[in-house]
Amino acid sequence: MPSYTAPVGDTRFVLDEIIGLDRLSNTPGFTAASADIVQAVLEEGGKFATGVMYPLNAVGDKVGCKREDDGSVIVPPGFTEAFQQFVEGGWTTLHAPEEYAGQALPMVVATAVSEYFVSANHALEMYNGLTGGAIEAILAVGSDALKQKYVPNMVAGRWCGTMNLTEPHAGTDLGMIKTRAEPQADGSYKISGTKIFISGGEHDMAENIIHLVLAKTPGAPAGSKGISLFLVPRVMVNDDGSLGARNAVSCGSIEHKMGIHGNCTCVMNYDDAIGWMVGEEHKGLAAMFIMMNQARLGVGLQGLGQAELAYQNAVRYAMERRQGRALTGAAEPDKPADTLFVHPDVRRMLMEGKSLTEGLRALALWIALQVDLSKLAPSDQEKQDAEDLLELLTPVIKGYGTDKGFDVAVLSQQVFGGHGYITETGVEQQVRDARITMIYEGANGVQAMDLVGRKLARNGGRAIQAFFKLVGEEVALGKSAGPAVAPVAEALEKANQQLQAATMWLMQNAMANPNNAGAAAYAYMHIMGIVSVGLMWLKMARAAQALLQSGTGSADFLNAKLVTARYFAERIMPDAGALRRKIEGGADALMALPPEAFLTAA
Amino acid sequence: MPSYTAPVGDTRFVLDEIIGLDRLSNTPGFTAASADIVQAVLEEGGKFATGVMYPLNAVGDKVGCKREDDGSVIVPPGFTEAFQQFVEGGWTTLHAPEEYAGQALPMVVATAVSEYFVSANHALEMYNGLTGGAIEAILAVGSDALKQKYVPNMVAGRWCGTMNLTEPHAGTDLGMIKTRAEPQADGSYKISGTKIFISGGEHDMAENIIHLVLAKTPGAPAGSKGISLFLVPRVMVNDDGSLGARNAVSCGSIEHKMGIHGNCTCVMNYDDAIGWMVGEEHKGLAAMFIMMNQARLGVGLQGLGQAELAYQNAVRYAMERRQGRALTGAAEPDKPADTLFVHPDVRRMLMEGKSLTEGLRALALWIALQVDLSKLAPSDQEKQDAEDLLELLTPVIKGYGTDKGFDVAVLSQQVFGGHGYITETGVEQQVRDARITMIYEGANGVQAMDLVGRKLARNGGRAIQAFFKLVGEEVALGKSAGPAVAPVAEALEKANQQLQAATMWLMQNAMANPNNAGAAAYAYMHIMGIVSVGLMWLKMARAAQALLQSGTGSADFLNAKLVTARYFAERIMPDAGALRRKIEGGADALMALPPEAFLTAA
Repeated sequence: MPSYTAPVGDTRFVLDEIIGLDRLSNTPGFTAASADIVQAVLEEGGKFATGVMYPLNAVGDKVGCKREDDGSVIVPPGFTEAFQQFVEGGWTTLHAPEEYAGQALPMVVATAVSEYFVSANHALEMYNGLTGGAIEAILAVGSDALKQKYVPNMVAGRWCGTMNLTEPHAGTDLGMIKTRAEPQADGSYKISGTKIFISGGEHDMAENIIHLVLAKTPGAPAGSKGISLFLVPRVMVNDDGSLGARNAVSCGSIEHKMGIHGNCTCVMNYDDAIGWMVGEEHKGLAAMFIMMNQARLGVGLQGLGQAELAYQNAVRYAMERRQGRALTGAAEPDKPADTLFVHPDVRRMLMEGKSLTEGLRALALWIALQVDLSKLAPSDQEKQDAEDLLELLTPVIKGYGTDKGFDVAVLSQQVFGGHGYITETGVEQQVRDARITMIYEGANGVQAMDLVGRKLARNGGRAIQAFFKLVGEEVALGKSAGPAVAPVAEALEKANQQLQAATMWLMQNAMANPNNAGAAAYAYMHIMGIVSVGLMWLKMARAAQALLQSGTGSADFLNAKLVTARYFAERIMPDAGALRRKIEGGADALMALPPEAFLTAA
Repeated sequence: MPSYTAPVGDTRFVLDEIIGLDRLSNTPGFTAASADIVQAVLEEGGKFATGVMYPLNAVGDKVGCKREDDGSVIVPPGFTEAFQQFVEGGWTTLHAPEEYAGQALPMVVATAVSEYFVSANHALEMYNGLTGGAIEAILAVGSDALKQKYVPNMVAGRWCGTMNLTEPHAGTDLGMIKTRAEPQADGSYKISGTKIFISGGEHDMAENIIHLVLAKTPGAPAGSKGISLFLVPRVMVNDDGSLGARNAVSCGSIEHKMGIHGNCTCVMNYDDAIGWMVGEEHKGLAAMFIMMNQARLGVGLQGLGQAELAYQNAVRYAMERRQGRALTGAAEPDKPADTLFVHPDVRRMLMEGKSLTEGLRALALWIALQVDLSKLAPSDQEKQDAEDLLELLTPVIKGYGTDKGFDVAVLSQQVFGGHGYITETGVEQQVRDARITMIYEGANGVQAMDLVGRKLARNGGRAIQAFFKLVGEEVALGKSAGPAVAPVAEALEKANQQLQAATMWLMQNAMANPNNAGAAAYAYMHIMGIVSVGLMWLKMARAAQALLQSGTGSADFLNAKLVTARYFAERIMPDAGALRRKIEGGADALMALPPEAFLTAA
């Protein structure tokens, strides 16, 4: 039977040793995150994930969502009740400001517990995750009237939120959207158009759904500069806060898709639906990116969450399943066969999962910390430093994190052999569910271009230079931290040299031919991912070594950190060199052929 | 709308230029394969695949197979009629010997056209593919009586065949099977036991199903040395060839699985079913490996077939879909956006697909040629050389070929963006269907151990030394073939040096600790795959260059071969170095932790 247990111990290690949450507890904005509160949030969140959300994961996949003839959408059995419990438990309020009845916990704490929700039931968690993104956008650029009217009920989980960007002909290229917003005399707008791929677009789990919709006002400039953002409630909200008539927005159909069946993916039709502008006219894309950037960190976390669930189950299967004998002689000669754990290639797959899940967990939380510090740090300089790191690493956790999350799900499925292909084992669902994370909120190729085309050069390369300095300092500390840590530092130093060489190559070659940047982007993002996760492993190895020396904590746990850091150094970091060589091939071989030549063979 | 076109032109290029089928046409056994016949087989096979099999691919996935209460299994709508047309078209008889009314075409030709069937409808083709494997095993070790009674109807496609190996507790470790075979006075056996994961185990498409079943006779030695092989017909066959009573074999249930829904995966129950031994007692595993080795080449071909289908559709989508603008300025300023083809990262994904599908096609056909030459070559030395190459490369085409086939399916899905996650686009089915190829007929980790643990050392390393020599000779020719070919030769030389270094490392380290071999196996298999496909690309580049110089053939097609060879050299071959470095890490970091440490985090 598949199962899920929240990795509270590992989260705690990251929060204590890498994030240093205790040292931050006197910083304004972190005061709510005392050690006791954090421990309670992690433990209770883990219990809720395991006990309430995870039992609905398979049924959500199997039954999926159904659209009725009247346009309503029925979520899988149990989802509504579970979501209600989620709301009652206060899990929607973790990171929201106190003035909207939120708990005002730091992003890093909310992110930590979100991982458990994603692992336990990705499809169910999405309803909450998208609401959080919508809240962020309204708080950032919305008027006070919109904030007061909509945000409290969204924070409380009584109302959900969605983001409506894509249209049939306009996905990555949002400049081509056709949805129109006609201004009305009372300051509202009438919105008309069709949006597709709207997660949680219509369902019966909440009293209302607040859609944030990209549309164009009359006479708006062509392209992405003409986009504005609108708030369109499913049900109108009266001035006294009570619900009024149904708005002219409806679900036209729901998509049949590869996975995340428990989340309804709707085609949404807007027929003169009433909405209000959020932020300034023609600045809708920037407003939407407030949601999007938070969502991208959230999607990286989904990659990790799926990997963790698949990995855990693969480990348990490998402990129980007996096939063959150890290459070094029978490990348990009295049993008919040894467990899968004796086989080095099974170990390879599991160590890959262990090193990537633990490494990505540290990275995701370290990036979430930058979200907090960019707002809460004591000085402007520290805020700027955090903002720089956040901008640089958001595409990395989304792109590299979800690529590797999917890889770990596939490897975990492989550990099961033929049983991994069968539905009842559960792991094939993780592969299908994880696959979407590489695609939505900006496909991973778009993330790579965001990194290489925007983030690297911004402010004269300030962020990447700061990142190199950070890595260099950590390497210097690691090299003198004894024989269990130094090889990890040396491997990271080499990988970082590959990153620096790739950066230099880009500086020298992208100006002459922008396609060189495009051709390099994906490999560059992966080198950056290796160095970023490698940086986390070096931090974790140093921390584990120090704790071992001081005799604090579980020696088994800390020793496993050192071994896993070594695995990452020996088995994953070498890819950085190959990726750098690929970049240096340039764009020529990619761009040389006319499109017809790609079908000559067919 | 998704579609499929058989890549006849590319197959023909490989058969003409890499296989040299015309030069072989006087060799006994190849005489049936005249240029006209081969062209007709490819064209008609391609038409059948596109016109009859492909239209049932999505419906097979959607509807799947159903087991009725009486134990019968209903295949998807249209499958029975299409299979009947397949039989009537003579497609089951291609490679079978003339004495059984086969067409006696070389394996290389049958393999070429099989790729089309796999691309068009993997699940439907499996019914035929497994029958072919069963025929091979009966012909190789069965008695004349069994051959005469069963093979003609199997060749003719009136009866299907299956292979019954796995039991709930015994998959890779077949030594643990519990199915029993009790000898009867008349020379038959009564077979009892349960087999799982039996593809095509029960259906209504053929009059009879001939099960080949692994079981143990009373007093058989423990482990794999005690296994014998039995033929168990679903319906008894009278001496006059007419069908008699139903045998005591039945489908207990069918599995719900990630993909290949059109092929029924059955739990088969044998309750004193009557069967006959195939080959010698206790030599069942060796007999089964006759099927298995052919099946492994077939599974490698399935990896290619799925990749080809996904790749083709991604190319067509990229031609039609308009999003964004070229980095170098709008390519079609009069259109609202450029096609996806202008984006270097989309090109990267498509070139990856092009270089791998065309490269794996050449490799699969070159290995199939070794099957033919191992039986038909003029001298014993040539037969042995071919057999050596075949044994060495079978795990490579299965393991590397299916890993890369899956990768190409995933990359092709990525080209579609969000639309790739939606069922109606078709490509998500290719990802799910392709996934099984990495698992069945020996999971890819088992292939890696077969390569490193068995094939490398056999006959004092004769096969790998011969392979190195072959590569070296090709590199020498390539280096002097002009500036379009020489860089490919140089890149292959470097990759081959990595393979030689990895081989040397294994020789020096595997004896001291067998786990070093196990820990290295997977990476080694991938280096071998890179060098093998790289060898094909160098051969294709040289051939293309020579044809261009002589003014023969389509310059566009030949130029595309040169560019694609360069892509493979620049973008795929560099992985060989990283893989070699991973191997040199040895087994320590993999084997150090106790199993419990893998769940410490959870």
